[in-house]
Amino acid sequence: MSEPEKTISTANEIVQAIREIVGPGSIALHEPSFDGNEWLYLKECLDSKHVSSTGKFVEKFEALISEFTGAKYVVSVVNGTAALQIALKIVGVKSGDEVLIPALTFVATANAVSYLGAIPHFLESDEKSLGINTFKLRDYLKANTQIESGLCINKITGRVIRAIVPMHTFGHPSDLENLLSIANEFRLILVEDAAESLGSFYCGQHTGTFGMAGALSFNGNKIITTGGGGAILTNDQSLARIAKHITTTAKIPHEWEFDHDVVGYNYRLPNINAALGCAQMESLPEKISFKRALFQRYKSAFEKISDAYIFEESNKCKSNYWLQTLILKKESQVVRDTVLEESNKCGIMTRPAWKLMTHLIPYRNSPSMNLEDTNSLYRRIVNIPSSPELIRVQK
Amino acid sequence: MSEPEKTISTANEIVQAIREIVGPGSIALHEPSFDGNEWLYLKECLDSKHVSSTGKFVEKFEALISEFTGAKYVVSVVNGTAALQIALKIVGVKSGDEVLIPALTFVATANAVSYLGAIPHFLESDEKSLGINTFKLRDYLKANTQIESGLCINKITGRVIRAIVPMHTFGHPSDLENLLSIANEFRLILVEDAAESLGSFYCGQHTGTFGMAGALSFNGNKIITTGGGGAILTNDQSLARIAKHITTTAKIPHEWEFDHDVVGYNYRLPNINAALGCAQMESLPEKISFKRALFQRYKSAFEKISDAYIFEESNKCKSNYWLQTLILKKESQVVRDTVLEESNKCGIMTRPAWKLMTHLIPYRNSPSMNLEDTNSLYRRIVNIPSSPELIRVQK
Repeated sequence: MSEPEKTISTANEIVQAIREIVGPGSIALHEPSFDGNEWLYLKECLDSKHVSSTGKFVEKFEALISEFTGAKYVVSVVNGTAALQIALKIVGVKSGDEVLIPALTFVATANAVSYLGAIPHFLESDEKSLGINTFKLRDYLKANTQIESGLCINKITGRVIRAIVPMHTFGHPSDLENLLSIANEFRLILVEDAAESLGSFYCGQHTGTFGMAGALSFNGNKIITTGGGGAILTNDQSLARIAKHITTTAKIPHEWEFDHDVVGYNYRLPNINAALGCAQMESLPEKISFKRALFQRYKSAFEKISDAYIFEESNKCKSNYWLQTLILKKESQVVRDTVLEESNKCGIMTRPAWKLMTHLIPYRNSPSMNLEDTNSLYRRIVNIPSSPELIRVQK
Repeated sequence: MSEPEKTISTANEIVQAIREIVGPGSIALHEPSFDGNEWLYLKECLDSKHVSSTGKFVEKFEALISEFTGAKYVVSVVNGTAALQIALKIVGVKSGDEVLIPALTFVATANAVSYLGAIPHFLESDEKSLGINTFKLRDYLKANTQIESGLCINKITGRVIRAIVPMHTFGHPSDLENLLSIANEFRLILVEDAAESLGSFYCGQHTGTFGMAGALSFNGNKIITTGGGGAILTNDQSLARIAKHITTTAKIPHEWEFDHDVVGYNYRLPNINAALGCAQMESLPEKISFKRALFQRYKSAFEKISDAYIFEESNKCKSNYWLQTLILKKESQVVRDTVLEESNKCGIMTRPAWKLMTHLIPYRNSPSMNLEDTNSLYRRIVNIPSSPELIRVQK
């Protein structure tokens, strides 16, 4: 076979293996499902006229997330980007600071840093976790930073590196044990971007609860959705109070007076979106079990494929398998675009990883580690259909 | 009667006049109503699984607002604060600029300016419009600014005054004719904070469509609600395109690639909130007519009260009467707190105007005109129950 023929043949083999699992027809990358109390709770909002800033569902939703994740305090907000922006703000990230984030992430991670006037500083990921490569990072920080007055200083830019933000890629937990140790050694505040990892655990502890604060997202493509929504997780009561205060216009409680003591944000999650979230939380364990079952099916189907494998959680992790992740072997990376083209052409929605942050116009001049492995990962990752419904309908 | 006795007596007379109109029981300041297709449209979202960034309601909602307001382009967003922030950003407000806004406004007007790194500069309001006092403003700008290279420079701070943002207080249109003329004379970009004035017109043209851009809000207390939501209005196609682009993470359209060309925002209005908005828009004309009828009833009831009057639109304006506004005469301003106490005590929710921006900790050092009239207005305004339902139930 010629090279182009081989590429087509391999791509077809891969698409065929996906088709075996997802069944016939047009298949979305990730679709939400509303089989529980969604309708009941929305109706309750309309009947009670509480669709916005009043009503019981915001508090109920926050309690459900707290119970599930083990985070002592939960502050729901309008989306995951806002959650991360506020998480970074309450831990003390300031204009002119640098914040370490993986280069392999959705742009919101970098934008949340930018909104505070801070500068994202991009890190290498590894193939084992799809998150920050902690072994390379330690060496990098040793070589490029120094501690002055208890702060981590970037020796090249002279700026304070205030925080590190692991992002649990496609739901798979990052190497939190080493991240905590690095944060401690280099005086970095750990804030987790857990937008994709509701339902994912590391050593039995929920992602998003390891750092000073964490951020969840409930966008339409996430494991549960509120239409649009997010939440800040923290175990620190005073941080939680500040988060609630500044996300609700920093209004000082009073029966009728409008007084605000800092520049706050209008980031409150509306009651109607929280109502949807409450119903979704009730079926979260089922959704996770479906997604984990879907992983097993994909894994079996790909055992016969020599050019690619399905990403699997490591021993310490229990992943929500939010987006099932196909990884091409290095020698087969040339096949990626053909897999994307052929699968989407036949109605199976797939997509590559996000363009690396260092390749985006607004961030290409930001500080960065060498991203050799991340570039390779970017060229080899394909996310494949991941809806929990794919299991339900076939059960 | 002693002074305290007279205060109580006047307050009771005022509360009695309100009670005559609103009827018995506990009365909210402003309650939404959901008597149209709200159920149907929300159910459609759940049935179709389109609750978030996909689905037909966002486009439909934007078309309905465009049709009603006459704005050529409408970009819906997550709330009114985001709408104003983006409206200011697309017209070119930059970090370090000053932006003229009334001191008598909700804090979001000032915050939207702050998010861009710009500095709010506070203006005097007048009793005739409850908006910017254009006569005093012209003199103020003549004395304190100069035009250099086509830009308005604050002679005291040396900063560029980039824009002027009238806010149509409680739904009542500001003096747009003179504002346009001042904007033109002093090279200021006009952006309207029309958060409260959906359904309000000036010389037959809808508020929010006079400047380069305008912002609406659909918070739970507004004339229509989406739970939380807002919209940017503009007649400029290129500004509209930029607004849509940067409110949807500045993603460049592609079947699967994630590329973003500027630092964007995650401000998209979810489909489920837009669905609610579509149903609400259908009953907007009815809501406005109810609110205008409610004004007439209050006006009659207050004809016998010598210490206060109900704010009435001027000849050029047609107000949505979003929040009915009781104004105490100057000699009776001492009565305000007793009116607030007595009314809220007996279950009639009332509230004063917002604390002036210059009295809030984050803004007390910002530049400001002399605010003698605004201070007086603040001490004399009481918003009284304004729900359209107050007319429907008594019809």
